Amino acid sequence: MFSSTTEQRVYYADTDHGGVAYYASYLRWFEVGRTELLRELGIEQGELDREGILLPVVEVKCEYKSPALYNDIILIETSIMKIGNKSITFSYGILRKEGRKLLAQGHTVNVFARGASSTEIPPDIRKKLEKS
Amino acid sequence: MFSSTTEQRVYYADTDHGGVAYYASYLRWFEVGRTELLRELGIEQGELDREGILLPVVEVKCEYKSPALYNDIILIETSIMKIGNKSITFSYGILRKEGRKLLAQGHTVNVFARGASSTEIPPDIRKKLEKS
Amino acid sequence: MFSSTTEQRVYYADTDHGGVAYYASYLRWFEVGRTELLRELGIEQGELDREGILLPVVEVKCEYKSPALYNDIILIETSIMKIGNKSITFSYGILRKEGRKLLAQGHTVNVFARGASSTEIPPDIRKKLEKS
Amino acid sequence: MFSSTTEQRVYYADTDHGGVAYYASYLRWFEVGRTELLRELGIEQGELDREGILLPVVEVKCEYKSPALYNDIILIETSIMKIGNKSITFSYGILRKEGRKLLAQGHTVNVFARGASSTEIPPDIRKKLEKS
Repeated sequence: MFSSTTEQRVYYADTDHGGVAYYASYLRWFEVGRTELLRELGIEQGELDREGILLPVVEVKCEYKSPALYNDIILIETSIMKIGNKSITFSYGILRKEGRKLLAQGHTVNVFARGASSTEIPPDIRKKLEKS
Repeated sequence: MFSSTTEQRVYYADTDHGGVAYYASYLRWFEVGRTELLRELGIEQGELDREGILLPVVEVKCEYKSPALYNDIILIETSIMKIGNKSITFSYGILRKEGRKLLAQGHTVNVFARGASSTEIPPDIRKKLEKS
Repeated sequence: MFSSTTEQRVYYADTDHGGVAYYASYLRWFEVGRTELLRELGIEQGELDREGILLPVVEVKCEYKSPALYNDIILIETSIMKIGNKSITFSYGILRKEGRKLLAQGHTVNVFARGASSTEIPPDIRKKLEKS
Repeated sequence: MFSSTTEQRVYYADTDHGGVAYYASYLRWFEVGRTELLRELGIEQGELDREGILLPVVEVKCEYKSPALYNDIILIETSIMKIGNKSITFSYGILRKEGRKLLAQGHTVNVFARGASSTEIPPDIRKKLEKS
């Protein structure tokens, strides 16, 4: 299964008063992960966007194992779990680069949409996804 | 089952380039919902915090039904689904106030923790939770 | 000079690893302050928006005096400092409600824009602003 | 004068309903810029942090010239403008990488602090800063 790894640094912006990354920051990292995975497959969301195709998240789940800390470099490992008629399911692992400890894992379901309606995955996109 | 409703306005800060609320903004609203529910039960996270007790999220799930829009007033309806030995499961509904349309629903599992270790729910807190 | 006061609670979402509100959170509060001030004058940004008029910030300044803490209730005091041909200058004070300590102060310059071009303040909006 | 350039991609997380980067996102980028500049000088905020030294922002200014757009790669160009007894003034330019258009510019004043009190810049840090 095609997978992609992206690095991100944890800044103050990502953390909270508990001294660790805020739990919503992981959803930002999931977005980075799937955007970069798609880009590696030749699918630019910036272009889809100009054609009026969006990929909104209809479901997210995240399990937090161990907190990401300020100044950590994290790895976002993203895979495509499932390609449906109108949707893609991505899975994510967030690891601390040093020691490769798994910090969190989760998935999102993203639906292809034109305006407010879901739409089938366009054939040229499907071809790129299936090569993965 | 005890439940609590809090209102929030959707500002630019909460939205994204898709013209709707960013998917991580709902986790912010879940935080607002459970904090205000606990406050209504007489449990102040600010106080727990000073006693060294945190309530980190170990699992979150959110299903997005229909987008929250800029300037919407949303209702965060939060309930306690389950009280474990060391954890509470909260469920959330996010509704548009006007028309009371359900926009998203989800849950979080929050664990009582001292430092890096989970801990049993303190008896005084449990009493307040069980009255709910 | 017309001024408006809005309350906000400080949540984990607003804080950082330093244990206090993240410095960009104040810009979120400035947005809340000016949006609510305009609403009190009968100017709904949601409506302007539908007419294609935006009010982007072209300049912001903030001086931080004392940090907003987790669980604080803060007051956002917003005033209109200046009404230009195409712009409004808002000033802001952020205070802790308890004790009314000034935590931060600043200003933004917001320009009326249609698409990418600045535009004169529409007469009906100007009338509402000048009553202030 | 020493300066440092860092790249960042603009994601949905950084944008708002106006279709461009949210104005507070630039403060996140300023943080990234100064953190990476200090790292290049051998000053790790993660280490300072463990020694109880923080570098809070006491003043920020940002002028917005042209909006950063979804999917842009931006360059954060950070310089040290002034080294005081207890503070550093950083200046920032945010440019779109493609075409090197200046999108925003600003500065922050950051004060060395132990707990709630400002403190002189430690000599070993000053030495590293002055080499810059």
